[in-house]
Amino acid sequence: TARNLFLLPGDGIGPEAMGEVRKIIAYMNEAMNAGFVTDEGLVGGSAYDAHGAAISEGDMQKALAADAVLFGAVGGPKWDSVPYEVRPEAGLLRLRKDLQLFANLRPAICYPALASASSLKPELVEGLDILIIRELTGGVYFGEPKEIIDLGNGQKRGIDTQVYDTYEIERIAGVAFEMARTRQNRVCSMEKRNVMKSGVLWNQVVTETHKAKYSDVQLEHMLADAGGMQLVRQPKQFDVIVTDNLFGDMLSDVAAMLTGSLGMLPSASLGAPDGKTGKRKALYEPVHGSAPDIAGKGVANPIAMIASFAMCLRYSFNLVKEADDLEKAIANVLDKGIRTGDIMADGCRQVGTVEMGDAILAEFKAL
Amino acid sequence: TARNLFLLPGDGIGPEAMGEVRKIIAYMNEAMNAGFVTDEGLVGGSAYDAHGAAISEGDMQKALAADAVLFGAVGGPKWDSVPYEVRPEAGLLRLRKDLQLFANLRPAICYPALASASSLKPELVEGLDILIIRELTGGVYFGEPKEIIDLGNGQKRGIDTQVYDTYEIERIAGVAFEMARTRQNRVCSMEKRNVMKSGVLWNQVVTETHKAKYSDVQLEHMLADAGGMQLVRQPKQFDVIVTDNLFGDMLSDVAAMLTGSLGMLPSASLGAPDGKTGKRKALYEPVHGSAPDIAGKGVANPIAMIASFAMCLRYSFNLVKEADDLEKAIANVLDKGIRTGDIMADGCRQVGTVEMGDAILAEFKAL
Ligand SMILES: CC(C)[C@H](C(=O)O)[C@@H](O)C(=O)O
Ligand SMILES: CC(C)[C@H](C(=O)O)[C@@H](O)C(=O)O
Repeated sequence: TARNLFLLPGDGIGPEAMGEVRKIIAYMNEAMNAGFVTDEGLVGGSAYDAHGAAISEGDMQKALAADAVLFGAVGGPKWDSVPYEVRPEAGLLRLRKDLQLFANLRPAICYPALASASSLKPELVEGLDILIIRELTGGVYFGEPKEIIDLGNGQKRGIDTQVYDTYEIERIAGVAFEMARTRQNRVCSMEKRNVMKSGVLWNQVVTETHKAKYSDVQLEHMLADAGGMQLVRQPKQFDVIVTDNLFGDMLSDVAAMLTGSLGMLPSASLGAPDGKTGKRKALYEPVHGSAPDIAGKGVANPIAMIASFAMCLRYSFNLVKEADDLEKAIANVLDKGIRTGDIMADGCRQVGTVEMGDAILAEFKAL
Repeated sequence: TARNLFLLPGDGIGPEAMGEVRKIIAYMNEAMNAGFVTDEGLVGGSAYDAHGAAISEGDMQKALAADAVLFGAVGGPKWDSVPYEVRPEAGLLRLRKDLQLFANLRPAICYPALASASSLKPELVEGLDILIIRELTGGVYFGEPKEIIDLGNGQKRGIDTQVYDTYEIERIAGVAFEMARTRQNRVCSMEKRNVMKSGVLWNQVVTETHKAKYSDVQLEHMLADAGGMQLVRQPKQFDVIVTDNLFGDMLSDVAAMLTGSLGMLPSASLGAPDGKTGKRKALYEPVHGSAPDIAGKGVANPIAMIASFAMCLRYSFNLVKEADDLEKAIANVLDKGIRTGDIMADGCRQVGTVEMGDAILAEFKAL
């Protein structure tokens, strides 16, 4: 049976990075009979240029129908002053919301070959392996009212609303506990219960979910500001971190930066398993942005995009061996000292996007 | 004329740290004729134990009447399950709100003697000197509705509201630009305008305030998540950062941790200048918390509290020379290798709270 992938390369370096994934897909179809069928659409600024929206209805339908969406990156100075409703990010936010991708998995892994690239002392990040589970369809990102009101007299009021319901917290906590069981079995939940009522509820529901179904997992609670501190101070104390949409945005970016390899970090955004088929809607996306300053120059690091495809193999198609091999191929290439500009180091060989993709594919073939 | 100080030592290590400031106040009264008159109250858990509220009405009146409030720290496991309305933090939040202390100044300074204590590579933090200006009386901390609703069927809804009005953004931006002029003349404003309407308004108002009155200052805008990353990656790129209440909470804690000396960082929370007298209401507070684990043992680092008093001398009483001297005294003591346990390093001499306070006072006298 066909495996349907919908590709949304987006803006900036998105298309270049996606090009390297395409080669791996083609190879897997040819040599492994993987049966991937790909279609492609527009998202972000490129969608806006083509039809005045950050993603078209047609492409939304395709995304909804696909087994998995591969997403590049969106945004750039060209679209800095388009109306708020059609800004590039709106395409990504709509995909998350309409596909109900409530669980965002962001591994922060420090590749041994890159430990020295971190701004932290190497001994603090060597072997780092954190999984941040960020709630992705709730909170202040989507709560209403969300508006700017004109109060007269030159005064305006900007309003956003943070909203969390019990079931939303329960299901994301469930994902975190399940994931923890496949790892070191430890979850740290972060909120600001000392200031936010949604934080009070978050804390209660995580505690109850733990008690009811996951009491074998070790659970800790931390205030989100202290959590940010501890990530910088002693990142290896964490295994799985579960947190809300906005804190997850901040904390996962801090965690990503600790690894010294932002250009290498993937993410997966998953929906609930379908009642009948058990399949989850899913979108895979590098953590880095569109990097307009280096777009089109053939120098972007495609590793985060390729690693996102590895997550896709694992979570959407249960191709665990292939996922492991692809991740191993990336590590091997790094061990050989092959580097794009963003992770270049003394004694290494600097290559461009295509050469990096080729090197990883060659390793993948050889495994 | 008398200089009225209201002391709120609070919980945990707060009272111990405050004790060391008292000695400095006594010395300044005696030797410098400083004319400080002090009164003292309860806040946080200790206020709750005494009269069932996180701060009493009487103490609120005294805080409102004082020239400056010196605040220690609040909270501890003892009060983890008191009702939300009377939790220890409520005392601090009420002080901020009722005294209208909208401008929170958090310097993140890396003392040369402590650069190696940072989890970041020393070359990235040596000489670090960032000033974070956090809006402190608005945003999601105080916006309404803020509640947990029972939806029935075992479902609850937690709601918090982020609200910012034009005038609130304008006045905090003004503080940031004014401060920048006394420093490197650069301001970086952080929000999430790509997701939050309050962020859109924040960005607009900061831009307009800059254009109208502070175009001599260099202004940059950064998304708050990227800002968190950049703080970890290259902290010395920043001079003054201005941001909202919640982002400020997160970002200032990350910045504090970069310095490797959380136990040393002060903060000042200021109101608007009074129309007649020009005086600002003010509260001075160490960035660290109540550290219940080491409370009462005589080992807490009093430097953050003493440095907060130095900010008080500067901002509330315009005693600039005395403030400079007190800061110099702290640096000198560190240079001599005298350390509390939290900042202990090879070859240094470890001392307790009182000895550290004595050493700083001795240096201060000698300057
Ligand atoms: C692009 C933006 C809307 C997005 C977010 O804030 O979620 C990004 O920062 C992310 O973390 O995926
Ligand atoms: C104690 C708490 C309410 C407070 C805050 O969140 O503002 C603290 O974290 C701070 O940064 O001063």
